[in-house]
Amino acid sequence: MASLGSRLQHSITSIALKSYLAEFISTFIFVFAAVGSTMASRRMREDAAPDSSSLVANAVATAFALSVAVYISANISGGHVNPAVTFGMAIGGHISVPMTIFYWIVQMLGSVMACLLLKTITISQYVPVPGIAEEMTGFGAAVLEGVMTFALVYTVYAASDPRKGPIGAIGPLAIGLIAGANVLASGPFTGGSMNPACSFGAAVVGGRFKNHAVYWVGPLIGAAIAGILYDNVLLPVAAMSPDIRGIPQGV
Amino acid sequence: MASLGSRLQHSITSIALKSYLAEFISTFIFVFAAVGSTMASRRMREDAAPDSSSLVANAVATAFALSVAVYISANISGGHVNPAVTFGMAIGGHISVPMTIFYWIVQMLGSVMACLLLKTITISQYVPVPGIAEEMTGFGAAVLEGVMTFALVYTVYAASDPRKGPIGAIGPLAIGLIAGANVLASGPFTGGSMNPACSFGAAVVGGRFKNHAVYWVGPLIGAAIAGILYDNVLLPVAAMSPDIRGIPQGV
Amino acid sequence: MASLGSRLQHSITSIALKSYLAEFISTFIFVFAAVGSTMASRRMREDAAPDSSSLVANAVATAFALSVAVYISANISGGHVNPAVTFGMAIGGHISVPMTIFYWIVQMLGSVMACLLLKTITISQYVPVPGIAEEMTGFGAAVLEGVMTFALVYTVYAASDPRKGPIGAIGPLAIGLIAGANVLASGPFTGGSMNPACSFGAAVVGGRFKNHAVYWVGPLIGAAIAGILYDNVLLPVAAMSPDIRGIPQGV
Amino acid sequence: MASLGSRLQHSITSIALKSYLAEFISTFIFVFAAVGSTMASRRMREDAAPDSSSLVANAVATAFALSVAVYISANISGGHVNPAVTFGMAIGGHISVPMTIFYWIVQMLGSVMACLLLKTITISQYVPVPGIAEEMTGFGAAVLEGVMTFALVYTVYAASDPRKGPIGAIGPLAIGLIAGANVLASGPFTGGSMNPACSFGAAVVGGRFKNHAVYWVGPLIGAAIAGILYDNVLLPVAAMSPDIRGIPQGV
Repeated sequence: MASLGSRLQHSITSIALKSYLAEFISTFIFVFAAVGSTMASRRMREDAAPDSSSLVANAVATAFALSVAVYISANISGGHVNPAVTFGMAIGGHISVPMTIFYWIVQMLGSVMACLLLKTITISQYVPVPGIAEEMTGFGAAVLEGVMTFALVYTVYAASDPRKGPIGAIGPLAIGLIAGANVLASGPFTGGSMNPACSFGAAVVGGRFKNHAVYWVGPLIGAAIAGILYDNVLLPVAAMSPDIRGIPQGV
Repeated sequence: MASLGSRLQHSITSIALKSYLAEFISTFIFVFAAVGSTMASRRMREDAAPDSSSLVANAVATAFALSVAVYISANISGGHVNPAVTFGMAIGGHISVPMTIFYWIVQMLGSVMACLLLKTITISQYVPVPGIAEEMTGFGAAVLEGVMTFALVYTVYAASDPRKGPIGAIGPLAIGLIAGANVLASGPFTGGSMNPACSFGAAVVGGRFKNHAVYWVGPLIGAAIAGILYDNVLLPVAAMSPDIRGIPQGV
Repeated sequence: MASLGSRLQHSITSIALKSYLAEFISTFIFVFAAVGSTMASRRMREDAAPDSSSLVANAVATAFALSVAVYISANISGGHVNPAVTFGMAIGGHISVPMTIFYWIVQMLGSVMACLLLKTITISQYVPVPGIAEEMTGFGAAVLEGVMTFALVYTVYAASDPRKGPIGAIGPLAIGLIAGANVLASGPFTGGSMNPACSFGAAVVGGRFKNHAVYWVGPLIGAAIAGILYDNVLLPVAAMSPDIRGIPQGV
Repeated sequence: MASLGSRLQHSITSIALKSYLAEFISTFIFVFAAVGSTMASRRMREDAAPDSSSLVANAVATAFALSVAVYISANISGGHVNPAVTFGMAIGGHISVPMTIFYWIVQMLGSVMACLLLKTITISQYVPVPGIAEEMTGFGAAVLEGVMTFALVYTVYAASDPRKGPIGAIGPLAIGLIAGANVLASGPFTGGSMNPACSFGAAVVGGRFKNHAVYWVGPLIGAAIAGILYDNVLLPVAAMSPDIRGIPQGV
């Protein structure tokens, strides 16, 4: 119940600045692999349509890179790497509004930088902006992205559940694996983003914002529902102090 | 040795209701990825026959999603995500009969909901109901599904063996990985279900129940054998209290 | 320094019998997935030659299934699942000669049973007996299998190194992953067996023993070198009692 | 602040010699799988161009083998397996200059031996020396390799961060997974080496040093930046003694 002033102060301490840097680096590393793997598959198959093996390449890169991105920043910034995750944490009161904004900014910046680097260095005409299968509606796509982001954020919450015991050790892996599984289920339909920062970076650098709202509205709603449900229904109130989630250190 | 009345009461406490919700969500998330990955592969290859890379996509999605589905509900509902696993636990007396029934209901409900969502949103004519290779008999398919479910449930039991020590931390991963490995071994023969709820959801939404009994009879028998064998032969009686398995919390 | 009589007695105690059963089940489960995945890929591509994606399918099945097979029997039989591993342990004195013989018997039995089941149930004419690329010599193939088995057994020893600390928790995963990586490196050259029991089962059921010695000589020599090197050079003598490896319980 | 003499003495103690042997073996095992998987894919597809599934094969082999190579040597040599990682550790003062030189020598030796073995045994005309996509410049390729090595070394530092807690157990996995993800993102552009020893071995045995400097300059600069950044910005000085990293035992 701190005042706005003290919250703003908290958001620019040395520990907070470290967490912004960690989020920036983690998001950069994740988006580099997630978007880069799609560009690499495309480079190899020239003009042919994407097939199962290019989807596997994208899903494995997503799973591996997200696991690592969460792992490396878990004890510094909480390992969000995703504006939807940060939003889900903010809804539950585990991160303050000013810090949420700073997290969003560095996440989007990290994503844009990764996409820009990929496009420049590979001299590529093509940046894989996620798109929607022609037979689907924007509403359907938002629901699909929302359901998958629900699964992702639910896993993030479960991974920091204080009742997890020894299996808590594989939390970052679980977060990466569910993202990879969802890419395999949704690749040809919506591209399987679940991460507005990733979609934003690709859209900015690729210069195409068609249906871009889908990749914000769906994930943010899915994340909010996951956070509210986990905190209020699945987790007994007594088991948890407000400081456990989100930012593990100080602030 | 509780009376039926007290068992029924136990099955509708707040903790029990939480475990039903957790099972519902975990099964939904698992089936979404397992069935969705088959739909996505099919969407990408149009009319061509499934090949090794679409089988890899399905197996990786199964392994990743089941690991996560077990992980997120392990400390709430025991992480069954599968009527055969629940049956194996019931045979060993680790979960009461009324709760077994509720688990089955929410597992099947979660699966139907996931398949329905996938079909509706992707505007697909096709839901991949698992089927049997034309050269095989129904009996052979049931044996194959039974043997694979034996391996799965045996792994579930091993993962909660109190003698596991530090490697207990990777239990949910082990459960997902054996499912993925078995999909790779059985894909073109029976589809590699090992999970009656998953097959049931696909059959209901796909409207095709041909050979459906195979996906119940085989897995339930395999699960029962695994449970009986592990508890009575591999685990020394003294090492285990009846409360350790199944429902880790209260009830 | 026990007499032969007492060693023989130790090898038929209740704990020893449990470890034989656990080895049998683990080897069965592993071979089922490793050999089954090759049969499944073959079933899907009909007469076409194996390609990268069928190799990936086989490697992933091997990695996943071996991780699980080691995991489920680790605290009962030591999780060998492989005569070469048992031989490496025997060379280091971590398992007695009578028990080594019993382990070999149940491992080979488990493998034969798995291959027999697969062939019978899938009504298949074909069991994938590992073979050598035509341009290679038997000696070269034995060296290749030996080097890979060295890596596998070295990993098994490292996984039970008492100095491992917290990362000891992922030991069974490490053992499975190195097998999968080696399959990817050697698939079209020798089939990447590293496991005489697995090759034996396929050879018996497939009825083809051409070059079969390669899959015993190479792995056994590689395993022996790994065991001797790790125990005598990399592990300080003081850090280890002879009972730590092989059979963790009693005997 | 030891004198050069005492540092040299430290670099030839029994413990130091063990760490050189462990690095040699780990690098051999890693390069065997990483380079071997490319040769195996090539052997299977004859003259066809590499596709997504051969990239997946190479990435999975890299991820699995690097995880294991780090795992098996972590408590003996620190699990570098890569001259760039050793350089990053040296920059941070976690390993002495004489030991750095010995590490580099054994890493390069291990890599050359692995490539030599693969070429000899498979009777292959072809060793996959990493090369640069024709549309790219050498400078761009060095930047790409540098950025990916930054991610790898940053993960290595994060994995030994004393604040990691229970998730520290999956550190070796995280290191392998980020390498695999980066291979998927960069395969057709630079080959995704991130490891000068690996590129060196392939270049020596393949007899082609075109653009070889790219695979040293990029990774070494990326590694240095990661080390400096993590130690000086992300890690509070007080949290760490100079002995924690690099060589965990003695020396």
